[in-house]
Amino acid sequence: MTAPAADADPFLEACRGGPTPFVPVWFMRQAGRSLPEYRAIRGTDSILEVVKKPDLVVEITLQPVRRYGVDAAILFSDIIVPVAAVGFGVDVAQGVGPVVEQPFRSSADLGRLRQLDPEADMPYVLESVRLLSRESPVPVIGFAGAPFTIASYLVEGGPSRDHVKTKTLMYSAPAVWTELLDRLADMSLSSLRAQVEAGAQAIQLFDSWVGTLNPADYRRYVLPSSKRILEGLADLDVPRIHFGVGTGELLGLMADAGSDVVGVDWRVPLSEARTRVGTDVSLQGNMDPAVILAGWNATQLIANEILGQGRGQRHVFNLGHGVLPGSDPDVLTRLVEYCHGWRPEP
Amino acid sequence: MTAPAADADPFLEACRGGPTPFVPVWFMRQAGRSLPEYRAIRGTDSILEVVKKPDLVVEITLQPVRRYGVDAAILFSDIIVPVAAVGFGVDVAQGVGPVVEQPFRSSADLGRLRQLDPEADMPYVLESVRLLSRESPVPVIGFAGAPFTIASYLVEGGPSRDHVKTKTLMYSAPAVWTELLDRLADMSLSSLRAQVEAGAQAIQLFDSWVGTLNPADYRRYVLPSSKRILEGLADLDVPRIHFGVGTGELLGLMADAGSDVVGVDWRVPLSEARTRVGTDVSLQGNMDPAVILAGWNATQLIANEILGQGRGQRHVFNLGHGVLPGSDPDVLTRLVEYCHGWRPEP
Repeated sequence: MTAPAADADPFLEACRGGPTPFVPVWFMRQAGRSLPEYRAIRGTDSILEVVKKPDLVVEITLQPVRRYGVDAAILFSDIIVPVAAVGFGVDVAQGVGPVVEQPFRSSADLGRLRQLDPEADMPYVLESVRLLSRESPVPVIGFAGAPFTIASYLVEGGPSRDHVKTKTLMYSAPAVWTELLDRLADMSLSSLRAQVEAGAQAIQLFDSWVGTLNPADYRRYVLPSSKRILEGLADLDVPRIHFGVGTGELLGLMADAGSDVVGVDWRVPLSEARTRVGTDVSLQGNMDPAVILAGWNATQLIANEILGQGRGQRHVFNLGHGVLPGSDPDVLTRLVEYCHGWRPEP
Repeated sequence: MTAPAADADPFLEACRGGPTPFVPVWFMRQAGRSLPEYRAIRGTDSILEVVKKPDLVVEITLQPVRRYGVDAAILFSDIIVPVAAVGFGVDVAQGVGPVVEQPFRSSADLGRLRQLDPEADMPYVLESVRLLSRESPVPVIGFAGAPFTIASYLVEGGPSRDHVKTKTLMYSAPAVWTELLDRLADMSLSSLRAQVEAGAQAIQLFDSWVGTLNPADYRRYVLPSSKRILEGLADLDVPRIHFGVGTGELLGLMADAGSDVVGVDWRVPLSEARTRVGTDVSLQGNMDPAVILAGWNATQLIANEILGQGRGQRHVFNLGHGVLPGSDPDVLTRLVEYCHGWRPEP
């Protein structure tokens, strides 16, 4: 954490393993429900409508940057946007998540997933990124859903605890499964490339629900498509963050999939995560979002443990999942200050 | 797996680390919704009413023993029974799970959790165990909920994905939390002791949802109360199985809590679980219940992998969580036969 280049960005440098003057921090879902200034302008439209208004998206995206002083701005959008944009028939219900009218059932549904043309299908997303890349004082993170997690919504028809329909398709119809994931990989890759070309300086691939699989099945059924996305971005030279929840057993495989940064949830101590991923990738995480709701004292105690485990080396501080509704913004503000002021033991 | 004593029970021996002629197998939720003979006699009463009918409980408990040929019979009951029996105000809604009328909020609610007197408060449970211990051709497993998992229902008011209210209480009011878990530990311990005295030959402590915690918080906030239960059973000399889902990072701590057997879900390969728990405990698991729904071919493939990782040493085959509704009983029957016929590589 010494001698960073004067013009180096702390977040990007931490992603790349370079020296940083402090541990950079941002929060998944930092823009959104927990902010009063968000609730004041958000309205009641589906997020699929909100993303079509770049001025509103820019404002929502930058609100947490101004309030919290975080070191990165993640585009306000949803992982389901590309699938919705090609007309698969999906909406995002407030407080529920993505809901699919006619879930994916068989090979006949593959035809409903045509190739994504980002400039034609979701020009508003790219316009938002372009505006943000000019207006944001910190790097803009673009993102996409990883094939497994998107597939789980399409197959289940909505959020799921057990992902039983998804796994049944995966185990019993592997050829259809592979084709589904390949198509979703193509969509995410083209979306991410377009976001980077529009000005995003880092990307995050959200495989939020892949932690429901074991390593053998992840390797067989998921890794090839996720790897194709991440490796397909290599030439763009932006940090690639690979994120999931409950992925303790998968961290090594996720790191090796073409990731520069691996997201770690709160179940795995960062010191243990480091032994699983090796020293060539950075770690992002890993405070339990529930800690924020317990107030500042609990938050400080646990932040200190996490920062100590991260040792200030290749570490981007974040929560292990998104900011929960009901989180006190003042606790998050203090948490950012605390991370920025923390220094490793010499 | 050679030279077992002629009268040794395979399930009990595998729990204790002795030689067995084959890998014993049972399934969590083997009695229940997936069996037509269960649906034929179950009726629509709450399970809290069904458990008051020992003859019905005995029949339901033994149905899967007869059909599948499993090596143990787990009492048909619910982890919420003791809490309901002392009048906390809880019911079990079909397809939902435990629902609490007035959730636990503060120290004022501690008074609603008086000590359990098993013979007086739930005589029907003990009567069922007594009947089963005479009628069952295989060992009867008694069980109870671990304090964290029971507390999560009482605090959340029902099933939860994030356990946010539970964690908020745990982090922000540790003294109340500890008292709550201690009371729940007392109840589970007295329930389990009474079940063993009534004839249960093994017990399982269900900490189904504790996998939402990291090792540091588990050690601080949960381990002492769970350990008090398991160590409080040591003099009874029955195998103690300690089970949770998503507990990959906790397996070592759970093993050291006074467990003879640790339950492993499907996320952690058994070979990896073995390195985490050492050689002094047995492993139970660990097929993803969703595999059963994919049919026999997928089931056989994965059973073979699991059995190979377990090496037939200190291994009780099971699913990593309960049998899912919609599972084909014939697949489970074949799975039991397959486990019984499998032998490790010499």
